Order: sequence, then C-alpha cells, then structure tokens
Amino acid sequence: MGLRYFEDFAVGDRFAAGPVEATQEAIIGFAREFDPQAFHVDPAAAAHSLFGGLAASGWHTAALTMRMIIESDMGIPWGVVGLGVDELRWFKPVRPGDHLRLESEVVAVRPSGSKPDRGMIRVHSQTLNQHNVPVMSFVSSLIVPRRPGRSP
Amino acid sequence: MGLRYFEDFAVGDRFAAGPVEATQEAIIGFAREFDPQAFHVDPAAAAHSLFGGLAASGWHTAALTMRMIIESDMGIPWGVVGLGVDELRWFKPVRPGDHLRLESEVVAVRPSGSKPDRGMIRVHSQTLNQHNVPVMSFVSSLIVPRRPGRSP
Repeated sequence: MGLRYFEDFAVGDRFAAGPVEATQEAIIGFAREFDPQAFHVDPAAAAHSLFGGLAASGWHTAALTMRMIIESDMGIPWGVVGLGVDELRWFKPVRPGDHLRLESEVVAVRPSGSKPDRGMIRVHSQTLNQHNVPVMSFVSSLIVPRRPGRSP
Repeated sequence: MGLRYFEDFAVGDRFAAGPVEATQEAIIGFAREFDPQAFHVDPAAAAHSLFGGLAASGWHTAALTMRMIIESDMGIPWGVVGLGVDELRWFKPVRPGDHLRLESEVVAVRPSGSKPDRGMIRVHSQTLNQHNVPVMSFVSSLIVPRRPGRSP
C-alpha cells in the first residue's frame, strides 16, 4: 500500500494483521520486566490465581497489538503516532500459545483545529485469539498529515 | 504495607514509585520487538522525524509505568488486575536517559453490581520525567476483593 494522507482516510476503512503468537517464554519475559506478578511469571502459582493459569500481562497484549498495527501498513507518512488511547478493555486472558490477530477500523476523522497541516483519525482496534474471541480492544487517536502542496 | 481490601480504599488515596530510567538500549530493544518505527529505533533517522530525536514507544512508557504501579505496593490481595484503561494520553516524548516516576491517586471506588466478593477502584496514574513534566497519564479500573469473613 502507498502513502495515505488525511484526505485518504474515511470512516469504515479497515485494516488487519497477524497472527502473532504469545509464547510462554515471551509472556514470562515481558512480565518479569514490566509486570512481575505471579499469574504472569509462574505457571504453578498462576493456577491458584484469579486467572486460573498463566496469562499474559495486558500491557504485553497491547504491545503485541501495536506491532500488528505497524504491520497492518496504514501508510501514514509520519508513521503511527498516537496522541492517546481510550476505552482500552481486556476481555479474556491471553494464554501461552495463543495466536492473536488484529482487526482495525477507522471510526472518526477530524481536521486539526489549530494545525492546518494535519488531522486526527480515531481507530478502533480489536485483538482476537485463534478462537475468534476478542481478548482486547481500544480506540487510538492518531496524527495524520494532510497531503502537501495544496493551499487550504 | 499490608494487604488492603476494597473497604480499605478511599478516593484521594495516593501511591508513588520510581524512578526508573528509560535507557537508549531499552527504548530501542522494546521498539524493535513491539513498535519498529524509525523514531523509536534509529537515532539518526529519528532526528528528522516528528519527534526530532529518538523517543520511547508510548507502549514502552505504559509498560514502565505498570512496573512502577506494581512497585508502589497498593497491597491488593489478588494483585493488580485491570479490567481496562481510559483516557491514556501521551503528553511529551520520553527520551533516552529520562528518569520516570509514578504518582497515582484513587479517583473512584465502586462495589461490584454482580459479584458480592469484590469491588472496583479507578486509579489515575501520572508518569513524570526528571523535570517533573508529565509525559503520560491514564485511569485504570482495578478489581479489588472485599475483606473476607463478613456477611454482606
């Protein structure tokens, strides 16, 4: 896909990527560094936790989803640059060996009120496992440049 | 700090942790795995990007903040288990060598409508750099068990 400027995005545009695997090694490695709790790093202890078994840190799922957003190749000339995220929800645990995929959809496009060279798009991203069950979703607000060389 | 049950949390309770350093090595390592864009992995290319220099992936800042939330020792018996996050905002780039710290505050406490053994607390977390400038904030919704052994 080529470059896409603000004018090229419309509500309803869809992107997809994946799958990526959440291996037990990666789940434990991420959690040891960023979310060192028993249910994320210790399979035996995790069995007796709220999760009933080892589960990925929700932030690990978010990071894997970001990688899929990059791989979905939206074509934004400045790259995928987020101002923020709303309505991030973790629905189901991500288990060792789960294969995750991404389904994204543009839900809003909005010109910048202050900067004439850019706009913002809001993208709803859903992360699903190999059973097509959503495990996480969020709405990100991304900066997108307007096509250059045209006076406003 | 000992264990804290739902009954022990009140709006206005504060927690803090840090600092943690965002080293250039860690910024590039995280981004290579989860957010492989030039402004996160290549200092020379980053100089010509929207960020004007190498900047941490926003998801890296979120993951480092999660680690500080764990270290802030809120004392929740089930651990720090989030249902979701709202109003995540990235205000300023995190640069190599930045030292980040956490300031968290309970902004709501709410009994579960369906599960009598638990409630939810909403916690506003702000991540600040060594200049006391906020670089990120979000509001997380955490599950907290009620104190056992008391009939409702």
